[in-house]
Amino acid sequence: MELTINDLARLLNGELEGDGSEKVFKIDKIQEGSRGGISFLSNPKYERYVYETNSSAVLVKRDFSPKKEVRAALIRVDDPYLSFTRLLEEYQRLMISQKNGVESPSFIGDNCKVGNAVYRGAFSYIGHNVVMGDNVKVYPHAYIGDDVTIGNDVIIYAGVKIYERTKIGDRCTIHAGAVIGSDGFGFAPQPDGSFKTIPQVGNVVIGDDVSVGANTTIDRATLESTVIGQGAKLDNLIQIAHNVTVGSNTVIAAQAGISGSTTVGKNCMIGGQVGIAGHLIITDKVKLAAQTGIIANIEKEGEVRLGSPSMEHFKFLKSYSIFRILPELKSRVDELEEKVLNLSARKKEDE
Amino acid sequence: MELTINDLARLLNGELEGDGSEKVFKIDKIQEGSRGGISFLSNPKYERYVYETNSSAVLVKRDFSPKKEVRAALIRVDDPYLSFTRLLEEYQRLMISQKNGVESPSFIGDNCKVGNAVYRGAFSYIGHNVVMGDNVKVYPHAYIGDDVTIGNDVIIYAGVKIYERTKIGDRCTIHAGAVIGSDGFGFAPQPDGSFKTIPQVGNVVIGDDVSVGANTTIDRATLESTVIGQGAKLDNLIQIAHNVTVGSNTVIAAQAGISGSTTVGKNCMIGGQVGIAGHLIITDKVKLAAQTGIIANIEKEGEVRLGSPSMEHFKFLKSYSIFRILPELKSRVDELEEKVLNLSARKKEDE
Amino acid sequence: MELTINDLARLLNGELEGDGSEKVFKIDKIQEGSRGGISFLSNPKYERYVYETNSSAVLVKRDFSPKKEVRAALIRVDDPYLSFTRLLEEYQRLMISQKNGVESPSFIGDNCKVGNAVYRGAFSYIGHNVVMGDNVKVYPHAYIGDDVTIGNDVIIYAGVKIYERTKIGDRCTIHAGAVIGSDGFGFAPQPDGSFKTIPQVGNVVIGDDVSVGANTTIDRATLESTVIGQGAKLDNLIQIAHNVTVGSNTVIAAQAGISGSTTVGKNCMIGGQVGIAGHLIITDKVKLAAQTGIIANIEKEGEVRLGSPSMEHFKFLKSYSIFRILPELKSRVDELEEKVLNLSARKKEDE
Repeated sequence: MELTINDLARLLNGELEGDGSEKVFKIDKIQEGSRGGISFLSNPKYERYVYETNSSAVLVKRDFSPKKEVRAALIRVDDPYLSFTRLLEEYQRLMISQKNGVESPSFIGDNCKVGNAVYRGAFSYIGHNVVMGDNVKVYPHAYIGDDVTIGNDVIIYAGVKIYERTKIGDRCTIHAGAVIGSDGFGFAPQPDGSFKTIPQVGNVVIGDDVSVGANTTIDRATLESTVIGQGAKLDNLIQIAHNVTVGSNTVIAAQAGISGSTTVGKNCMIGGQVGIAGHLIITDKVKLAAQTGIIANIEKEGEVRLGSPSMEHFKFLKSYSIFRILPELKSRVDELEEKVLNLSARKKEDE
Repeated sequence: MELTINDLARLLNGELEGDGSEKVFKIDKIQEGSRGGISFLSNPKYERYVYETNSSAVLVKRDFSPKKEVRAALIRVDDPYLSFTRLLEEYQRLMISQKNGVESPSFIGDNCKVGNAVYRGAFSYIGHNVVMGDNVKVYPHAYIGDDVTIGNDVIIYAGVKIYERTKIGDRCTIHAGAVIGSDGFGFAPQPDGSFKTIPQVGNVVIGDDVSVGANTTIDRATLESTVIGQGAKLDNLIQIAHNVTVGSNTVIAAQAGISGSTTVGKNCMIGGQVGIAGHLIITDKVKLAAQTGIIANIEKEGEVRLGSPSMEHFKFLKSYSIFRILPELKSRVDELEEKVLNLSARKKEDE
Repeated sequence: MELTINDLARLLNGELEGDGSEKVFKIDKIQEGSRGGISFLSNPKYERYVYETNSSAVLVKRDFSPKKEVRAALIRVDDPYLSFTRLLEEYQRLMISQKNGVESPSFIGDNCKVGNAVYRGAFSYIGHNVVMGDNVKVYPHAYIGDDVTIGNDVIIYAGVKIYERTKIGDRCTIHAGAVIGSDGFGFAPQPDGSFKTIPQVGNVVIGDDVSVGANTTIDRATLESTVIGQGAKLDNLIQIAHNVTVGSNTVIAAQAGISGSTTVGKNCMIGGQVGIAGHLIITDKVKLAAQTGIIANIEKEGEVRLGSPSMEHFKFLKSYSIFRILPELKSRVDELEEKVLNLSARKKEDE
């Protein structure tokens, strides 16, 4: 990001106050700024930092009036946070779009169709009959098996492995080490206690705007497709088993696992380390707190669950608040028994 | 699978009804078939699809008599599901056996012994003194360290990393991104609060017919061997710590973790996200439900466990059914206390 | 380790008894020794093995007096276990330091500064502007992004992926498949239910003497740095989210996960499969048992926790001991109610 403060002020439609000639090449927190950085002041609580920061430029509100001397150049904008976010986006776009062309050595099989502005890093491997849109970035050590289809504007980071016949939509990001399309875990028990592998000949289909985290694994279906719906966001180290469907715009936090043939609805939020058993149907907008275990269908839209096995969120919390004092509850029952015994005994005596 | 329907009928010892000249190149579900596909009808519940399907061929029972017109060619066999499974297996075998020869560039060290019909994908790395049987498929970006021994008919998928001195039996499948033989996690605490690394100079030994899932990690032993017994099936993202032994034909679901020096018996079934503490002995045929936590030995063969810390399965469910109504139970105790207080008070009054 | 028993005796400042000319090339357990191996006898319980072992040499205490004939050569030292550990360390150092030079093909970008005695394995990728100290070992398929800084004596195992701008200290070990610096999982919900990606332009900073396990993922910060403190030890398959700080000498077991913006103190011990929610502060020397879930700050130094949501360790165990007998407790309440009902009824009759 080799732009001057002047350039940034123009880009953000801001009003410059101070020296605009300095180059800005990094993005700061206002508390920790240093030369060449740009930060922002949005929350008045942080105002004192605008006087202390070593950032070269600070985004402030149009009507900001400093109470002390400010060393940094000020760029006055309508919404400093929004403008800052826009800078972040530009910065990241710039970083990624710098990657272009084909580094050597790299491998590409027969009959591939590759779009424009594609990056193929050194040691990337693209199998046979692969179709790839424009502006796809294939980082080093990425592996793309035979017959894979990839849309436009997709980023495949270093060491991603995509098995054969996978389909990926537009604008997806697949993070380093993710594995897409590995064999579903299917084994038929034999009379002697051993297992026979059930062939898994389906594939994985990933919609547009999906993000898949680092080292996440998505198994391919037995016959049809394991499906990740449009706009779904998957964090790191997640397990998606064979024949699973994840609905659109569902967000899944790290280390969650969804077992085979389960369908998760749209706009769900699944917490970290959640486990969902196989062959279930989870409806839309369901929220599962971290470490929750799901062993039955969830049919009520928007349900919030907690616990393993899961309960409705507040019910679990209420039960758990009693769990915390169970020893006391037991003592009270002990005492009650004694008292009732006494009462009964005295009753008997009376009679 | 560029075979005609005639070819398939012959292969499956089936009786053809309809046009056998069409080529079949994919495997369908009967509900979703399309041209060039083959599907099967086993369950009578699905009979109506045989009249609707667009599959080019359908496997049916020898005695099937259609009630309406069927567009697809029918192949009559003894057991359509079994025949279909056989097709799946043939299909998968074909897909994998197509991979042959050495793609370039690839790396192989000194003094290696490599069998016949081996595939070495581009960017695969084989260290020094590696011994490898016949028909081993080493996919791109696989890393095989020095002094590793691999049997016959083993598939090492893309980006698998096998550390030095690992031994792998025959007919194993190691899925993408799995790491075998990484350092055991051993650190000796020092007086100043820091930790000294305990060298881990053992290895990992994997028996015949073992499957290791994507991004699963198996640490090598401190001195001897971490052992995965014959026929064991490990799903994705599993952690096997140093000095662990997993018995033969034990199945472990995704994201389970077994801590150091624990021995798991034969024919066990370990659910997803199960955690087993270190230095334990789990006997044979034990079943652990998903998310169970094991902190003590299990000595009873066939025991089924649930919960964290675990309990016998049904006992946990019974306790948990009370946990669900704990607030109610507490209210009942509150009420009892009040009643008993009243009774005692009135008793006193009486006296 | 192609040394003779004489060499080892000299190296360990030991006194040799027996034939010192034999070569020793491996490290044994005394119970399982074989020719060419060296083992040790420290615990008197194992004394009988010193007479049975096939190891070529055994380390024993200076004052050990055999009661039977010993076939192995004896090396008398002050502390056999310590000497043995020293041998293990030498052995491991030797194994690793054998890796040197540059294997071909490998990739290195522009403007990199690489120290002495660096190993760059075949298919390793080093981006632009990377700075790397002396004695760094970059194994095959390792990916090091642009602008990364790495100290001295660092081992980067096969297939590790380090995103741009990461900083790594001295004497670190990063195990195979680990991903460092992937995008933080940050998405801003939009009115239509979809999510907008929040750019993550920070980095990861790893202190000296840190160990990162196989397939562990560490996300980079949104703006600043995700920090792993000096001497921290991370096991396999761990998730460290964006903006997390892990204190120095904290040890984290496999499959644990720490959510975004949480700070974990120094000298903590975090068990396997533990989950810690986001935006929390965990103080120093805290111990979290395996599978514990943390949803609030922990302010008491040295606190030990268990359960999900967590409780003080002993309190959880006490509550859980009652949980185990909840059905019985409920029966007792049922019975009490009946008795109290009877007492009240009879009381009424009396009046």
